[in-house]
Amino acid sequence: MAFRVLSRGASSVHQQQQQLKVLTDLLIRSFSSGPKNVGFIGLGNMGGPMASNLMAKGHKLHVFDISAEAKSALKAKGATPYDNVADLAKASDFVVTMLPNNDIVANTYDTIIGGGGVRSNTIFIDSSTIDPNVAKAVQKKVKEAGATFVDAPVSGGVPGAQNATLTFMVGGSVEEYGAVKELLEGMGKKITHCGGYGMGQAAKVCNNMMLGISMCGLAECMNLAIRLGLDPKVFADIINASTGRSWASEVNNPVPGIIPTAPAGKEYAGGFATGLITKDLGIASAVATTTNSPIPLGALTHQIYRTLMAKGLANKDFSVVYDFLKNSEGK
Amino acid sequence: MAFRVLSRGASSVHQQQQQLKVLTDLLIRSFSSGPKNVGFIGLGNMGGPMASNLMAKGHKLHVFDISAEAKSALKAKGATPYDNVADLAKASDFVVTMLPNNDIVANTYDTIIGGGGVRSNTIFIDSSTIDPNVAKAVQKKVKEAGATFVDAPVSGGVPGAQNATLTFMVGGSVEEYGAVKELLEGMGKKITHCGGYGMGQAAKVCNNMMLGISMCGLAECMNLAIRLGLDPKVFADIINASTGRSWASEVNNPVPGIIPTAPAGKEYAGGFATGLITKDLGIASAVATTTNSPIPLGALTHQIYRTLMAKGLANKDFSVVYDFLKNSEGK
Amino acid sequence: MAFRVLSRGASSVHQQQQQLKVLTDLLIRSFSSGPKNVGFIGLGNMGGPMASNLMAKGHKLHVFDISAEAKSALKAKGATPYDNVADLAKASDFVVTMLPNNDIVANTYDTIIGGGGVRSNTIFIDSSTIDPNVAKAVQKKVKEAGATFVDAPVSGGVPGAQNATLTFMVGGSVEEYGAVKELLEGMGKKITHCGGYGMGQAAKVCNNMMLGISMCGLAECMNLAIRLGLDPKVFADIINASTGRSWASEVNNPVPGIIPTAPAGKEYAGGFATGLITKDLGIASAVATTTNSPIPLGALTHQIYRTLMAKGLANKDFSVVYDFLKNSEGK
Amino acid sequence: MAFRVLSRGASSVHQQQQQLKVLTDLLIRSFSSGPKNVGFIGLGNMGGPMASNLMAKGHKLHVFDISAEAKSALKAKGATPYDNVADLAKASDFVVTMLPNNDIVANTYDTIIGGGGVRSNTIFIDSSTIDPNVAKAVQKKVKEAGATFVDAPVSGGVPGAQNATLTFMVGGSVEEYGAVKELLEGMGKKITHCGGYGMGQAAKVCNNMMLGISMCGLAECMNLAIRLGLDPKVFADIINASTGRSWASEVNNPVPGIIPTAPAGKEYAGGFATGLITKDLGIASAVATTTNSPIPLGALTHQIYRTLMAKGLANKDFSVVYDFLKNSEGK
Repeated sequence: MAFRVLSRGASSVHQQQQQLKVLTDLLIRSFSSGPKNVGFIGLGNMGGPMASNLMAKGHKLHVFDISAEAKSALKAKGATPYDNVADLAKASDFVVTMLPNNDIVANTYDTIIGGGGVRSNTIFIDSSTIDPNVAKAVQKKVKEAGATFVDAPVSGGVPGAQNATLTFMVGGSVEEYGAVKELLEGMGKKITHCGGYGMGQAAKVCNNMMLGISMCGLAECMNLAIRLGLDPKVFADIINASTGRSWASEVNNPVPGIIPTAPAGKEYAGGFATGLITKDLGIASAVATTTNSPIPLGALTHQIYRTLMAKGLANKDFSVVYDFLKNSEGK
Repeated sequence: MAFRVLSRGASSVHQQQQQLKVLTDLLIRSFSSGPKNVGFIGLGNMGGPMASNLMAKGHKLHVFDISAEAKSALKAKGATPYDNVADLAKASDFVVTMLPNNDIVANTYDTIIGGGGVRSNTIFIDSSTIDPNVAKAVQKKVKEAGATFVDAPVSGGVPGAQNATLTFMVGGSVEEYGAVKELLEGMGKKITHCGGYGMGQAAKVCNNMMLGISMCGLAECMNLAIRLGLDPKVFADIINASTGRSWASEVNNPVPGIIPTAPAGKEYAGGFATGLITKDLGIASAVATTTNSPIPLGALTHQIYRTLMAKGLANKDFSVVYDFLKNSEGK
Repeated sequence: MAFRVLSRGASSVHQQQQQLKVLTDLLIRSFSSGPKNVGFIGLGNMGGPMASNLMAKGHKLHVFDISAEAKSALKAKGATPYDNVADLAKASDFVVTMLPNNDIVANTYDTIIGGGGVRSNTIFIDSSTIDPNVAKAVQKKVKEAGATFVDAPVSGGVPGAQNATLTFMVGGSVEEYGAVKELLEGMGKKITHCGGYGMGQAAKVCNNMMLGISMCGLAECMNLAIRLGLDPKVFADIINASTGRSWASEVNNPVPGIIPTAPAGKEYAGGFATGLITKDLGIASAVATTTNSPIPLGALTHQIYRTLMAKGLANKDFSVVYDFLKNSEGK
Repeated sequence: MAFRVLSRGASSVHQQQQQLKVLTDLLIRSFSSGPKNVGFIGLGNMGGPMASNLMAKGHKLHVFDISAEAKSALKAKGATPYDNVADLAKASDFVVTMLPNNDIVANTYDTIIGGGGVRSNTIFIDSSTIDPNVAKAVQKKVKEAGATFVDAPVSGGVPGAQNATLTFMVGGSVEEYGAVKELLEGMGKKITHCGGYGMGQAAKVCNNMMLGISMCGLAECMNLAIRLGLDPKVFADIINASTGRSWASEVNNPVPGIIPTAPAGKEYAGGFATGLITKDLGIASAVATTTNSPIPLGALTHQIYRTLMAKGLANKDFSVVYDFLKNSEGK
């Protein structure tokens, strides 16, 4: 079965043998569930707890971050800190990267490859949220260097990272998905296979564009309903039982007091930050331009969130758009 | 308990007695479930089957339409046709109106009132989709003429009308809601109380604005996902299990082949016509202007559907927006 | 020549004779330029100075406003105040109405007609900004009552009203335009004939929709240019010499310091109020819905200004949209 | 005076001497107006006629294009064709690049620099339309390789290229602007200095975003005006004398028949292609994302033009948006 996925470009017996070995390794690894050496690069609000969760599962962690404090915090829990990402990669069976943007992801992998950090049986997993085309380009480079790369961005935010309840959207072959699934289950509860390289990123960016549109639209509808005289709780119940329902209306209604646990009731603290949805909408806009795909509502939602950013609301939950759009008292 | 809802403006004993009589009648009617004399005005694609369903429940129907054919069709099933809406109303315990727009609704009630068609114990139910403010104005006139009026627009479309599975959104007092519920259950399976007069219309227009936004947004997201290389079925499953899910994504995905029963698979025939969502979005835009409520995505969605109208797509299901936005072959 | 404009519906010799008399009167009046009895209804920020300018031209003014103070101010300058618009109209050769919205205009004319205030040789001129369809409906009623009505909304704002430099956009027949031109020249410097009844309003609403779009677009472009590192004055000169130029860029640049006399340099005081452009965009949205015309940018501009209204900026010049959209310091 | 522009980073006497030499060369060149060796890379619809115009001024042309036909055409007029851009650059005093996008521009300069094509006294002029940030990055590389680079995108389209009436928007120092002005005057009639490196591109992208917004807005307004009953020529005159006027309304009205010479009268042939404004709006969207600048109307205009692209209208003049938005007959 493994032969099916041999790349067509493998022109020599030697190359085919090498590929076979990689695939066999993948299969073996997906059946062997013992502790692993796991490199982790990027130990911020998301990466920090994710790495901790892997340690709690018994894995040995090798960690890097530009922040010395972030590394120290993980070292205190038993991880080995590194000054150099290539050395970190050499010591690892898996390497997870959790980084802020396209350029930092691309540069990090260039540094690992350039520093000779790629072992043929290492699997690199990028859980950053980046442009699907950048993910594809990095995959190509890692593959050329002889190893395996999948994109596996997450949803679920900081609470999901802390509670190991993230959703992972994986782009790669069926075998590669099989090889990373168990490791990712140490950090999340749903591991989805979205298709080939970059498709994890594509799925995330398209889903989040829809999420942004739903939230902005819901904010408008709730405000209009209230202005027309509807009781917000009554209307929320109606919409949730009707064709207007969405994840946003059911789980994260932006009007304070409708859903007690939602950020709206906590002055929009916590949740999914405006800065992050704006970043995702920026990636959506960029890939829509690349593919010449019309996204009128997506682009407008992007601009609305960008206006919120310009007003200093980057750290509030993205449902704060209701507070932004709603009429001031008496207007 | 009935005294609670006596209007404050009832300045004389005589007026209070009259109101008490109306309320008592409402309470009695809500407990008496025998066949009624029901007037029905507007026998089109929706009204025709709704009136038929009431006859099937044993009610005696008194019907009017500007189309002689529409009246004949109901007459053939046993209804009594009228040439005059005031005469029809005089013969009826309930009068249901199912008409195309603000002006026709307002004119019809003016004609009934002017023609002396209002009996104090008749309940008028307007199931048209109109501006909530027009509904409030009509309610006021009917009340001044001595009878009862509620707004009760529907969702569920022609299939809902045919199968008596409509949702009714009722605006009126608790007692009035109680008094119409059983009759409406002869035409629908969910009868929701949305608040005071006009709130049925307000709930419908706000829900449908959200629905239009969800559908347009989903069309953009599906197209972008496909252009990025995602398999549409795989992505539909992902979004339905994620924060991007909505009624539109779960029940009426606009990409042909995802949901076998959806209009997308039938060249966008049937379903909820573009012409109707455009009309609802027009009402939403109008009431947003009246209340000075910002609706950026709602307004843009309105314009997108208006562009579809201008391209001759009025009779296609509103999910046809995907077909409109998607890239032509090879572009 | 006058026969050409006799309406086709004039079914009797008597009616034709009446129409001929009206037209002859119009022609005579357009050649007689002496002082007139002019009724003026609506003496606010615009109407007050307009009425004063007519007095300065030697006309005798008959005035009404719901505000006693407004009437007193004109009385002090020599005008005759009225408590009743029908009586005012009976005393007038011309009646100018300058009122806030559709409903007030319609009600005022109903009151005049109902009160027997229409003399066959009186010319009614409505300079309010309203829906073209309302203007058409009022014209029809005034005509049925035997007199003449034209719509003649203005641009130029309070300074234009004060300095008698307004532009009037007249909707009516060529003869009617000829009959009102001289009077209007007492309040403005440009009197444009836009077409038949309602076309003055149509021209104004379409022009102002374009103006709103230009201003919002320019605000975005200036902000983006500055964020990219361009000197705002240099870029303003470039755009004014290029394909991006517009009235807004040449006369009312929204960035403080570019045009010394523009409201941007005076904390957006004076000029064309956000509340007024929002009202005009609301009329544009309404008539676009009536005519099923797609206006994506017009509708979005409307929503942007509505958001500014919700933020309490109604009284600032509409160029304040730059200040609203621009990035906060350091963002 | 030249010392003023020495870069602060020039830390050694040697570096300062080198910079002084470059500046002296620039000054000398700006006063010497004889024929030059000019390299020209990119000989398409724009580049071909631009190179021909330079030959007509007496310059010696060294040309490259990936199309052999394009090179042959220039060779037939007397230019020297090259297979290698580095060799071309070595033979040239000035090198003009006129290429389709960011990546091709960046790769071309990498190839020139990598191939040792940079002589210290060569001035590179990029007239492509690209992201200002890419222009800045290329400038830095060229400077590090020891030579001079300015961005100088154009407006005026194919007719401007053919008739040597282009506008050039130059980003660079005052001295560099002075050094390229005369050469550019051989291809255009207006050479504008927009600021430092990248500011030529920034000015172009911001101006063209405004142009796209103006055209879409005007298309909506003209359609609405016509639907309301206004004569399009009369309304065009009104808007051009009012606050709604813009370059688009005065020079390129999108309604057929208003301006005889405009593309609208020639089935939208010629003019400024939809494909090109869409590309420019894509750059605007990208740099707005980079700088986190809200561009609601710019982004929506981008999406509208992208929808036109998806409908196969890439080669029509961008005023075709009127034809796209306008209502079909009878709708």
